[in-house]
Amino acid sequence: MKTEYRTEHDLLGDRQIPAEVYYGVHTLRALENFPVTGTNISIYPDLIRALAQIKQAAARANQELGLLDDKRADAIVAACKEIQAGKLHDQFVVDVIQGGAGTSTNMNANEVVANRALEILGHRRGDYHELHPNEHVNMGQSTNDVYPTALKLATYVGIFRLVEAMAYLRRAFERKAEEFRDVLKMGRTQLQDAVPMTLGQEFSTYAVMLGEDEERLKEAALLIREINLGATAIGTGINAHPDYTALVCRLLAEVSGVPVITSPNLVEATQDCGSFVQLSGVLKRVAVKLSKTCNDLRLLSSGPRAGLGEINLPPRQAGSSIMPGKVNPVIPEVVNQIAFEVIGNDMTVTFAAEAGQLQLNAFEPIIAHSLFKSVTHLRQGCTILADHCVEGITANRERLRAIVENSIGVVTALNPYIGYAHATEVAQAALSSGRSVYELVLEMKLMTKKELDGVLQPEVLTRPHPLPKQHAGA
Amino acid sequence: MKTEYRTEHDLLGDRQIPAEVYYGVHTLRALENFPVTGTNISIYPDLIRALAQIKQAAARANQELGLLDDKRADAIVAACKEIQAGKLHDQFVVDVIQGGAGTSTNMNANEVVANRALEILGHRRGDYHELHPNEHVNMGQSTNDVYPTALKLATYVGIFRLVEAMAYLRRAFERKAEEFRDVLKMGRTQLQDAVPMTLGQEFSTYAVMLGEDEERLKEAALLIREINLGATAIGTGINAHPDYTALVCRLLAEVSGVPVITSPNLVEATQDCGSFVQLSGVLKRVAVKLSKTCNDLRLLSSGPRAGLGEINLPPRQAGSSIMPGKVNPVIPEVVNQIAFEVIGNDMTVTFAAEAGQLQLNAFEPIIAHSLFKSVTHLRQGCTILADHCVEGITANRERLRAIVENSIGVVTALNPYIGYAHATEVAQAALSSGRSVYELVLEMKLMTKKELDGVLQPEVLTRPHPLPKQHAGA
Amino acid sequence: MKTEYRTEHDLLGDRQIPAEVYYGVHTLRALENFPVTGTNISIYPDLIRALAQIKQAAARANQELGLLDDKRADAIVAACKEIQAGKLHDQFVVDVIQGGAGTSTNMNANEVVANRALEILGHRRGDYHELHPNEHVNMGQSTNDVYPTALKLATYVGIFRLVEAMAYLRRAFERKAEEFRDVLKMGRTQLQDAVPMTLGQEFSTYAVMLGEDEERLKEAALLIREINLGATAIGTGINAHPDYTALVCRLLAEVSGVPVITSPNLVEATQDCGSFVQLSGVLKRVAVKLSKTCNDLRLLSSGPRAGLGEINLPPRQAGSSIMPGKVNPVIPEVVNQIAFEVIGNDMTVTFAAEAGQLQLNAFEPIIAHSLFKSVTHLRQGCTILADHCVEGITANRERLRAIVENSIGVVTALNPYIGYAHATEVAQAALSSGRSVYELVLEMKLMTKKELDGVLQPEVLTRPHPLPKQHAGA
Amino acid sequence: MKTEYRTEHDLLGDRQIPAEVYYGVHTLRALENFPVTGTNISIYPDLIRALAQIKQAAARANQELGLLDDKRADAIVAACKEIQAGKLHDQFVVDVIQGGAGTSTNMNANEVVANRALEILGHRRGDYHELHPNEHVNMGQSTNDVYPTALKLATYVGIFRLVEAMAYLRRAFERKAEEFRDVLKMGRTQLQDAVPMTLGQEFSTYAVMLGEDEERLKEAALLIREINLGATAIGTGINAHPDYTALVCRLLAEVSGVPVITSPNLVEATQDCGSFVQLSGVLKRVAVKLSKTCNDLRLLSSGPRAGLGEINLPPRQAGSSIMPGKVNPVIPEVVNQIAFEVIGNDMTVTFAAEAGQLQLNAFEPIIAHSLFKSVTHLRQGCTILADHCVEGITANRERLRAIVENSIGVVTALNPYIGYAHATEVAQAALSSGRSVYELVLEMKLMTKKELDGVLQPEVLTRPHPLPKQHAGA
Repeated sequence: MKTEYRTEHDLLGDRQIPAEVYYGVHTLRALENFPVTGTNISIYPDLIRALAQIKQAAARANQELGLLDDKRADAIVAACKEIQAGKLHDQFVVDVIQGGAGTSTNMNANEVVANRALEILGHRRGDYHELHPNEHVNMGQSTNDVYPTALKLATYVGIFRLVEAMAYLRRAFERKAEEFRDVLKMGRTQLQDAVPMTLGQEFSTYAVMLGEDEERLKEAALLIREINLGATAIGTGINAHPDYTALVCRLLAEVSGVPVITSPNLVEATQDCGSFVQLSGVLKRVAVKLSKTCNDLRLLSSGPRAGLGEINLPPRQAGSSIMPGKVNPVIPEVVNQIAFEVIGNDMTVTFAAEAGQLQLNAFEPIIAHSLFKSVTHLRQGCTILADHCVEGITANRERLRAIVENSIGVVTALNPYIGYAHATEVAQAALSSGRSVYELVLEMKLMTKKELDGVLQPEVLTRPHPLPKQHAGA
Repeated sequence: MKTEYRTEHDLLGDRQIPAEVYYGVHTLRALENFPVTGTNISIYPDLIRALAQIKQAAARANQELGLLDDKRADAIVAACKEIQAGKLHDQFVVDVIQGGAGTSTNMNANEVVANRALEILGHRRGDYHELHPNEHVNMGQSTNDVYPTALKLATYVGIFRLVEAMAYLRRAFERKAEEFRDVLKMGRTQLQDAVPMTLGQEFSTYAVMLGEDEERLKEAALLIREINLGATAIGTGINAHPDYTALVCRLLAEVSGVPVITSPNLVEATQDCGSFVQLSGVLKRVAVKLSKTCNDLRLLSSGPRAGLGEINLPPRQAGSSIMPGKVNPVIPEVVNQIAFEVIGNDMTVTFAAEAGQLQLNAFEPIIAHSLFKSVTHLRQGCTILADHCVEGITANRERLRAIVENSIGVVTALNPYIGYAHATEVAQAALSSGRSVYELVLEMKLMTKKELDGVLQPEVLTRPHPLPKQHAGA
Repeated sequence: MKTEYRTEHDLLGDRQIPAEVYYGVHTLRALENFPVTGTNISIYPDLIRALAQIKQAAARANQELGLLDDKRADAIVAACKEIQAGKLHDQFVVDVIQGGAGTSTNMNANEVVANRALEILGHRRGDYHELHPNEHVNMGQSTNDVYPTALKLATYVGIFRLVEAMAYLRRAFERKAEEFRDVLKMGRTQLQDAVPMTLGQEFSTYAVMLGEDEERLKEAALLIREINLGATAIGTGINAHPDYTALVCRLLAEVSGVPVITSPNLVEATQDCGSFVQLSGVLKRVAVKLSKTCNDLRLLSSGPRAGLGEINLPPRQAGSSIMPGKVNPVIPEVVNQIAFEVIGNDMTVTFAAEAGQLQLNAFEPIIAHSLFKSVTHLRQGCTILADHCVEGITANRERLRAIVENSIGVVTALNPYIGYAHATEVAQAALSSGRSVYELVLEMKLMTKKELDGVLQPEVLTRPHPLPKQHAGA
Repeated sequence: MKTEYRTEHDLLGDRQIPAEVYYGVHTLRALENFPVTGTNISIYPDLIRALAQIKQAAARANQELGLLDDKRADAIVAACKEIQAGKLHDQFVVDVIQGGAGTSTNMNANEVVANRALEILGHRRGDYHELHPNEHVNMGQSTNDVYPTALKLATYVGIFRLVEAMAYLRRAFERKAEEFRDVLKMGRTQLQDAVPMTLGQEFSTYAVMLGEDEERLKEAALLIREINLGATAIGTGINAHPDYTALVCRLLAEVSGVPVITSPNLVEATQDCGSFVQLSGVLKRVAVKLSKTCNDLRLLSSGPRAGLGEINLPPRQAGSSIMPGKVNPVIPEVVNQIAFEVIGNDMTVTFAAEAGQLQLNAFEPIIAHSLFKSVTHLRQGCTILADHCVEGITANRERLRAIVENSIGVVTALNPYIGYAHATEVAQAALSSGRSVYELVLEMKLMTKKELDGVLQPEVLTRPHPLPKQHAGA
């Protein structure tokens, strides 16, 4: 079967475009120029939808301002709605890593919308004199306002999906904190035995950290929703109607459901990647804390016989091709790796943001790619961690209690009664003899059995309680 | 002259301490253990003051709770006030990079306060049975709540000093934006000529970016002021009176003037470095944008004859040991380098934060060192940039206007009148012939002279203006 | 049509596996556990081939040592050869980001090889009592030696493909350096006019940098080729025949064509990611220098009228959806972005390498993913830059010469004749008056016209030449 | 007492310089321009010595070429020798972070050498008509070749000092590996019990890693010794005698003892920071591996009762201000923090290197500062770790052996005898019942006691040994 072609033209000359595709010559040039990753922007459907939402809002705004006739406007809107409904995503074919500040992505969107709108109007694809990708679909716009606005819409949506997954994971930790509320264990600082606490207290920290990070992400979203649509080329609003900026912002909020607002200084907003850097920094923070949590889970579940053996993670797969029966903490491990990737992505974002020059940052495509990966992978990581790991964690209660009873660390609780100096002596004697603090304190007649039993109750050890006046001997 | 010594004791045995120093055996051990940088913590006076404020607030709280007698409490408070007044800073001698989660810093503070308080009480340094560094000065405290709280107090103060310097720099940019309000120039995207703008618009972006970053820093400060005093060893509040936490927080706010609040979950707060990571991320953002601004200043002032030559930075020093008369943009260059340092510091903070394990992050000293450097150097950078560079910038007005008049980029403004296709033709003809857009448009009879003059006025070019309905031929 | 299933068993129980697939229960578990990126390891065909090469070499080694019978060995080898020929890659389905130190990847390989070998032997897939993924295909192996060895083979091949692309780009720069050999221009330091040079000298630096980086990559490859096959679980060689290690290394070198050698300490080699960190550091170096080169190309080609305008990059696509005729340096821009990604990847590798614990680094999958991306994208970047940009660069010769003639920087060449002090005076006079150095020197009678003409010849300015004895007046 | 002043002049006008100082007006400008860190370059004595060595070699070269008279040359050389002997370092007062590509450092050196040489000649400081900082001390030089060459000399010396400290630490680990040669223990992968090994094998890996890194540093030093002296301003050698470059390189090698060689392309060498990036990458590798080693030491010594408790680190200081008797792994912790700093420094170096433009990298001062810190702190870290930690490590031999005997992991060794399937059954039974593998294998009659005892000998478990032909049942 013979492939049919249509001819399109740009400043470099004529090119044959396969008749059946919706993209045009500008997209074709980008395909030839950027064969980098082999992955195209359609892997980010939120981005494709955001582009269609912007094109729709712009068409309606221009229509309302009398700059675009109803027929063309309606056709553009119809095409954009189809794309938002999930159609034609396979026509968004430019590479996720591309030169040109997003121009190729915007051109790809203009061409797909234009050709679908042409079809809707009963014309053939490529009949741009009827409806032109740049003059009508892109009317009052520039890549330099459309592209960052699309990134922001897509990121905004992604942030809240991530927040949802974090809340899901947080609740899993909260349930465990409740379940382990009374499980006494030794706390550790610097990997050395410190003082008693409950396993519930330990798990509650993981929940609290997630809750705090949810708040930070929502704050970052408030910055992300600030757009520069109406800035056109460099923020001066050249070729945009004076009423266009306010109008398109309102319409875009309606179309997208995202409460976008217009930046007060569009020249600044067009060149500034600050909100992306801020978001990336917060995502890095999420990654750091999630990684720390996974490190703890792996450490606490180390064993089964030569490790700490405090908790058990649910087995998920055979852990070794050579060691029979070995089970590994594969779920925390994969989340650690996602975290490392996110930290690397932050570095990429930082470099790209710093490299912006004068009125534009030409490197937004790699910023977008990095952020989309971070947001998406973190979301998957939280869901996986909740479902495949946290839900099924169990505690080795007896072992944990035995360790507390045998610990030297409980001596800290005696400090206010026997003084730091005597307590140090007891601790050293316990360590060298292998005997218990309990025994030694009684033997050295530092406290009575009754006093000692009073201080060493779990509920006394794991929260503040009334103290004696400063130790007499002190 | 013979050095006098006193003998002090710790769990490793006896040591001779020079009689005249205020620190004791624990500090001496740290000096021996950590000969890393040769720089000690006294280079951060805000940190020393914060430690003294905490010790003072704790002493008063314990006194009020009946745990510490008035005599000792008063002596501790008196010693702490001296330190806040700037005395004894030279006794804070532990290295800025140290193992032990800040224990050596806290021990150093306990010892200096104790020995000065002993003197005040008429005792000799080292008479710890009268007043003990750990039992009295450190009463109800642990390094694990004192140290992070001190970092937060010191950082909070530092943030606002930085914000002040940024505001100072912002105002310098704002003055220039006003001064250059009417200076027409070509805007550039991707280093290629784009469309006209004013130099005032360009400089206003630098001011706006700073203003936004000031807000971000203030937000980060809100997180930083959340402390964990009362957590003691791991957040369970072991050895702290039940009323101590609330009381010491209130007293610390009074003493320090910093509106500290107590974290709702002290176990979490004791192990979490999230607020440091967040702050470091924001400092990185400040650095990225400041660096971008300096890149722009260096680019715009490139020349004098082979560069863009749009603006002139005030000469600050001879630029070359071999090239006579050469003057370089040394002030923006030094700010760039501070920015690169801050970005590196953020990486250090990230690594250290991720490495926390279980109930504590042992690596807070390097987090502190990194943050203090970033905050201090950025502050210096902003002040230097304002005073030694921005204030003295001048514009090459004639050259700027000539470039606009000779530019091809003005053709964009004709788009709505002659269409994208014709405009592209004009642009290509201008480029190949070296002729002006103005001439060519008239010659090609695309617009009348009157129409053209109307569109190409500066005030029309640099802001949105009413447009014709969509180009007929489109 | 009804899907057929077979039943497989692991330590978690029985699972149904679609009858037509070659992977088995362990791979299925991984699919369920790691839905992270949606991209599976088959995007790295070098890795799939490397796994097959290792399985082949191991089968032959065990056969030769009398541990594996001929029938099974031959079937395994036959299956491995098919995979190396490009078959069955679609059966390698585990996610590129996965927990478990690569176990899932190794298990996936064992299962695919086993099932294909079973078919070759006339059995049905899943008949593991005839030929077992772990006991026969994985004989004498562990993930912990197979996986890093496979990464190294794949990376080694990737490095040399990258070196080839760099050499290709280098030669493009060398041709331009030759072409521009006589094009005089001003050199710049700190973006300020310095002294004259040729454009050929400038372009030669880009070639030299690439050449040096090619050497660094080859050095890194020497470390990468050091493998730990025979280490089995932790480097002690448990379950490997004493002669196995040497034999399998020799056979693997034959099968793969990569000159692998066995690491002298297998315990160390099994846990160490040093060679990956080293390689990643070198890739970062390549990225840094390539990015600097692209920054220069974008700067030198800035314009067309308001920039430096020294060179012209070939136009590759329309540069703007709004600005007619605008052409942007999209090719250098995409290479900049690849560089930023590589720098971020290096951070990920650094984090993952540091996180290794005790006898193994569990985070090798993300190291692999990061390195493969860096190597592949850099290779594409070099090819794109050569073909779509460097080849077509042209110089604006007249403009360049005019700038030199009009420059103040030539005064440096007069230093040895008139002294630094006089030269500074001339430079300052030129700058303030707008006049030329040539004129001023003559007018101030500092040199004769003949002397001056002698010094200011291009061939004298751009290389060392004999000097007068120290300036008399100095 | 009244301060005396002398007047000096530069292109900005006249300035009063305190009569007693050896630096001059250019240094004074730098002091005013760069009040960044408060730390000046004299903290890097290797750098000061390197500058003096270069000035000495240059003076002799110019003398030999007949460009500089004997009297001045001899005085310059005498002054340089004094500086190399440690004098006048306090006159090197410019900030470690400075704009201007090192010009201020070079100017500071020129002025100090000139004024000391003037004194030697019997003149007064500031009598520059007798001997001029730029015309005589800096003859044939530019900051752009002097400064990077000085960095390279200083770094080269620093690298070998670091290598020495690493070898010292390596030997400490080697002694421990020998001491622990027969201490059987469980190896761990992914923090889960794997198979047996010896503690000697474990410690030998730390030694091997260091040994490999020593080699990598020596390779990096080979690149670092390549200098660009003779390049002058931009590498074209303007104002340098044609024979100067080779001669000054030879003389500098003699004076410094560093086997410097001249880069083949001086234009490239003047702008390229590749060797610094490479070195920084290797330092990062050292940091990563040292940090991993310290993580392991902290993990293995966790306890004393609730941790792994395999080894004991020597106590170095009281570990807590509240917990009596607590001892923490403060020495590994400080080394971890140094490692995090080095990784951050590498990021700073990366950013600064990428930011170089055209013929020069203006950001070398921050590269220098970062590298010097990394090299110095790593060196201290290695020495501290050897002396204060590794030397004193002891093993808990009985505990280690008991864990092996009680382990499930030994079942892996039975794989070749009983097959992976049976071995998995045994492992699962052991885990659920708490019984030993030994018992269960006998009970299940899978092997005879004699066979089992043969396989489970330590020397068999911890290295490769002859195996049975593939398991019959397999």
